[in-house]
Amino acid sequence: MSPRGPDFRSLQSNLLRPLRSLSRPNLGYRSVFKPTRPLYPVRTYYGHITDSKMAPQLEPYFKKVDDLAESFIDRLRKAVAIPSVSADEDKRPEVVRMAKFLAGELEALGAEVQLRELGKQPHKEHLDLPPVVIARYGNDPNKRTILVYGHYDVQPALLEDGWATEPFTLSIDDKNRMFGRGSTDDKGPVLGWLNAIEAHQKANVEFPVNLLCCFEGMEEYGSEGLDDFIEAEAKNFFKDADAVCISDNYWLGTEKPCLTYGLRGVMYYSVSVSGPGQDLHSGVFGGNAQEPMTDLVRLMSTLVDGNGKILIPGVNEMVAPLTEEEKALYGPIAYTMENLYESLGSKTTIFEDKERSLMARWRYPSLSLHGIEGAFSAPGAKTVIPAKVIGKFSIRTVPDMDGPTVTQCVIKHIESEFAKLGSKNTLNVVEQHGGKWWVASPKHWNFSAAAKAVKEVFGVDPDYTREGGSIPVTITFEQATGKNVLLLPMGSSTDAAHSINEKLDRRNYIEGIKLLGAYLHYVAEEPIPKA
Amino acid sequence: MSPRGPDFRSLQSNLLRPLRSLSRPNLGYRSVFKPTRPLYPVRTYYGHITDSKMAPQLEPYFKKVDDLAESFIDRLRKAVAIPSVSADEDKRPEVVRMAKFLAGELEALGAEVQLRELGKQPHKEHLDLPPVVIARYGNDPNKRTILVYGHYDVQPALLEDGWATEPFTLSIDDKNRMFGRGSTDDKGPVLGWLNAIEAHQKANVEFPVNLLCCFEGMEEYGSEGLDDFIEAEAKNFFKDADAVCISDNYWLGTEKPCLTYGLRGVMYYSVSVSGPGQDLHSGVFGGNAQEPMTDLVRLMSTLVDGNGKILIPGVNEMVAPLTEEEKALYGPIAYTMENLYESLGSKTTIFEDKERSLMARWRYPSLSLHGIEGAFSAPGAKTVIPAKVIGKFSIRTVPDMDGPTVTQCVIKHIESEFAKLGSKNTLNVVEQHGGKWWVASPKHWNFSAAAKAVKEVFGVDPDYTREGGSIPVTITFEQATGKNVLLLPMGSSTDAAHSINEKLDRRNYIEGIKLLGAYLHYVAEEPIPKA
Repeated sequence: MSPRGPDFRSLQSNLLRPLRSLSRPNLGYRSVFKPTRPLYPVRTYYGHITDSKMAPQLEPYFKKVDDLAESFIDRLRKAVAIPSVSADEDKRPEVVRMAKFLAGELEALGAEVQLRELGKQPHKEHLDLPPVVIARYGNDPNKRTILVYGHYDVQPALLEDGWATEPFTLSIDDKNRMFGRGSTDDKGPVLGWLNAIEAHQKANVEFPVNLLCCFEGMEEYGSEGLDDFIEAEAKNFFKDADAVCISDNYWLGTEKPCLTYGLRGVMYYSVSVSGPGQDLHSGVFGGNAQEPMTDLVRLMSTLVDGNGKILIPGVNEMVAPLTEEEKALYGPIAYTMENLYESLGSKTTIFEDKERSLMARWRYPSLSLHGIEGAFSAPGAKTVIPAKVIGKFSIRTVPDMDGPTVTQCVIKHIESEFAKLGSKNTLNVVEQHGGKWWVASPKHWNFSAAAKAVKEVFGVDPDYTREGGSIPVTITFEQATGKNVLLLPMGSSTDAAHSINEKLDRRNYIEGIKLLGAYLHYVAEEPIPKA
Repeated sequence: MSPRGPDFRSLQSNLLRPLRSLSRPNLGYRSVFKPTRPLYPVRTYYGHITDSKMAPQLEPYFKKVDDLAESFIDRLRKAVAIPSVSADEDKRPEVVRMAKFLAGELEALGAEVQLRELGKQPHKEHLDLPPVVIARYGNDPNKRTILVYGHYDVQPALLEDGWATEPFTLSIDDKNRMFGRGSTDDKGPVLGWLNAIEAHQKANVEFPVNLLCCFEGMEEYGSEGLDDFIEAEAKNFFKDADAVCISDNYWLGTEKPCLTYGLRGVMYYSVSVSGPGQDLHSGVFGGNAQEPMTDLVRLMSTLVDGNGKILIPGVNEMVAPLTEEEKALYGPIAYTMENLYESLGSKTTIFEDKERSLMARWRYPSLSLHGIEGAFSAPGAKTVIPAKVIGKFSIRTVPDMDGPTVTQCVIKHIESEFAKLGSKNTLNVVEQHGGKWWVASPKHWNFSAAAKAVKEVFGVDPDYTREGGSIPVTITFEQATGKNVLLLPMGSSTDAAHSINEKLDRRNYIEGIKLLGAYLHYVAEEPIPKA
């Protein structure tokens, strides 16, 4: 089941979802909080409690996190030192070593751990996929159970790529920035959960939930094999999960934490036009052949205009209308056009204001022309008439766009434009792949808990953000478990994940450990919505 | 000086050219022909003499060519056996060996020969360019002097590319097709001139002209260094030349010889559009950035339509109008739509008739979109927004298009279309290179002589053809010498020059040797036009 619209537009739809916790007796751990406020306090729009007070157990927990900060950094240092590059088959033993390191740490903390094999790597049958590390910490039926996801593999990194420091040695500078491959993506967040367990233990604070872990080792190489695994374990190892939390994205800006409740989907298309039996010399055949490249460029020019307006009939019509209520959400978000200009590397934006820019990224579709296969693409000059050219483009999708309907519109439009050309060439339009958009309810207790934790740790209300890109595992978890999924980032947008000099700020790491723990406490404390 | 229009439209302009031979006494060798017809006989449109009779010396010459056929094939076998691949630097000694082979053969025939060094190869300073073989055979001031060009280097060839026989071993099949790299391009034609000399000597027929040879060894790699060499020698070694003959193209079809009097020029452009500081992720920036690729595709779609009509204002207006007289020339040419479909590998032609297809190839401009640099061009799917994309296209030019004016029109049009887009991106239009079109006068005595030779050897009037592509050395010779240049092909369009299984038919080779010799006889016999 995938949500069919942004849930802030319909709280009801969220409440209609079956919640296993509704049938759970309101006893046990949660009662120790002895809440002094009503079960349904006055909430802000996004549902976090305005009169939030620190849960009593958080103070000793936070203090212990501070006390253990250096050992937590040591743990990250050990993890960064393992070059678990999933894309490099020579590094596969390091990826496995990283899995075993994680498993060992979890076992030492008292978790029940399994290394689950996923079989051979597709198209590389001599290679075993790295195992998924799954773990359970706590098995109390009176506690909520939270399933957390992260990945322990990393992007490739070489000093000669331009790193200022050895990429697999954690290097902390005088601004407390911790440089190293995987620091922010995603070893820091993964270790955050382990550190939270350890700090609870050493602070003698009862862990507030049952924690299920799912840490994979192929995220940077397409999460090979993971979907089937999650699908299968949703009814087994993960069956107790009441909600899912993924810490593998980033704050929108650099200073303010956010909770992420939406992702755009993507539909990827190829349009091929072919005619001649082989590539031709333009001197000999120019003027004689109906050139496929001419047709293709004309077709591609009918898809989108320079200001990003999609010109394919029927596509924009599927987009959920913007309500005044939703529109009002964009103003307060900590983001500026300067942030956008900086990340873009230029001022060539479509919009001049933050609100419309964020909406364009998060809640409106976009169409990008990626390139052409089969044409001349090298530097220099070549007088070829390509015999077959394949244009590539994709559409980022949002609520309420339906993938198959988008594809129908695309094919109908391109075929209609091709017919207008009166060409003798052959057209073929193919959907290469499609991934759904995702929007969760930021009013769900899973988000409310995280919002309170942000307020507690950072002293501010979080921004509620969406992402323009896709994180496919999000939808996999939502569909397989039927539970709410929260994206709770630890790092910031300046961390250079996937780039040289990847880093995680000490503040983001240490306060992030507090955040994850506090989140779990508020999860435990969150009232059960009325049916 | 480059002709400014097809000379068949203005015989006068041709007659206005200074002809050195006008001041030469009409004495000596030419008088031995004792022509029985008037100096200005009735001519057909193209100027060949309708009552052509065999010059008396041709009969013993032709007979001797037939007698020596096997030794001429042996000479070709020796030449093909030298893998003079100019593109392969490891084969450079073989290219030099081929130059020395040619020089030795020419010297054995009594020619005065020089191997002229051209210095180091640009961008490969460790490599010497192969020498140009220049030679003079005959030095009689009472004879006309003909400068012939050819090349002794060849395209690469490996058996494993799909050759049916060893590419550097001349292999003759039961249809008398002589397979081997360089057989038709251009060792057969080059040896044709040597064989013609030998047959004259052995038949005791006086060689009718002074022959200057210019055989280069880098034609298949861009004729590095040759232009400057020709420019310099036009006033030295080549200064006596009365006309130029190049045998390095092909019959239009398979059965009928042709004389080639025109080539299209080419103007090559790149259009770059840039904006973002680096390539972007379409999920994050799709909808936020004005994408360079969107702008570029829209610009490229305004250049040409699917039926080859150039949409840039001012370009078509420069094309010399088609006269009824010229139009009538296309009908008789031995060419069919089936020939075109076969070479195209499909029926995706713009026109359905031979006449308009040939006109589109020879006498009208064309615009081809070659590709885009900087965009995604590989198989598969990649969700990139390219930061800078460079579209490549070229325009084939014809009389009376002026290159600089074409470029002005191109830049003005693209800048105007870009302005309409209202884009914040940056546009840059560059002329990458330009080469002029060339049209010679097929009424010149150089062509008349060749026409009579074709009629004599093959029993048919030649087709008068142009080529859609360019052969830059043609214009270099014309401009450097100021003399008429004739393209007189030996091979046929089915010879697969540059491809696997390159061949030259025995008939084309042996009759071609007769053709070259007969051409020289008719050159000697041709009357001097009135001033």
